[in-house]
Amino acid sequence: MTAQTDAGGAEKVARRRLKPHELVVWRMFLRAHSRLTRRLEADLIAEHALPLASYDVLLTLMEAPDHRLRMTELADHVLLSRSGMTRLVDRLEREGLVIREACANDARGMFTVLTDAGLQRLRKASRTHLRGVEEYAVSKLSPDELEAFGKTLAKLLDE
Amino acid sequence: MTAQTDAGGAEKVARRRLKPHELVVWRMFLRAHSRLTRRLEADLIAEHALPLASYDVLLTLMEAPDHRLRMTELADHVLLSRSGMTRLVDRLEREGLVIREACANDARGMFTVLTDAGLQRLRKASRTHLRGVEEYAVSKLSPDELEAFGKTLAKLLDE
Repeated sequence: MTAQTDAGGAEKVARRRLKPHELVVWRMFLRAHSRLTRRLEADLIAEHALPLASYDVLLTLMEAPDHRLRMTELADHVLLSRSGMTRLVDRLEREGLVIREACANDARGMFTVLTDAGLQRLRKASRTHLRGVEEYAVSKLSPDELEAFGKTLAKLLDE
Repeated sequence: MTAQTDAGGAEKVARRRLKPHELVVWRMFLRAHSRLTRRLEADLIAEHALPLASYDVLLTLMEAPDHRLRMTELADHVLLSRSGMTRLVDRLEREGLVIREACANDARGMFTVLTDAGLQRLRKASRTHLRGVEEYAVSKLSPDELEAFGKTLAKLLDE
């Protein structure tokens, strides 16, 4: 590889090309995510009229201190798309699942806060959701495979 | 487990609960997907002003017969979100990267077709994208880990 004769800065540019089978695995990763999240969403909508992105927002708020986050924090913490976050929170607010509150210490700050109704809706929906995660994903893997999968994901998450 | 004494139909309802460490792995899967796709998108926007969802649509069309798909097919085949697909295709059409064409054999049918400009834009962007897939994901794993990861993903994709 010619990169080996170059010094420091050039290395990043001259990385080796992705091999076809590596790209295949990457696309399987995207496809597995797509297929699993679509199934989980179909169940949530059928049983609770709750899109997966809404579930993600409610869960993220539930796990936040005092059940509240600024919009930028919310967008950073959700596990699905953060596009359309303002419209999504507007919709959840109209349904009474979250409220918006001004932040006392910060004139520009506005919190999104989970309501009791939001927490109850999340709790009901979580039974459907966790059943789906078990059925569509976890039950497909042996304990050893699940453990190895976790280790691989940890490497992908390592900075 | 009480489910073992029940017959057929009750089994699905009475599945065992997801264990905490299983949920942890599931959420690592979502987080890895989120983090990696956000990085890949940041690079595509910085270097090509092309959101990842647009890249996904152009790539999906490139791989389709005659570079064309109906909207429903396009929504089924993309690997990222299919929400907002109509607006996304509108935007790609305004940029000249796709065109819409009526289908000769089907009065209701409308194809979205990749243009030469779209193909060129995709080719340029793919250098950035594949470099990112290599750097952020594939390079983090050994060949054995990548192979095991592929097998696990295949199980998750198995119907």
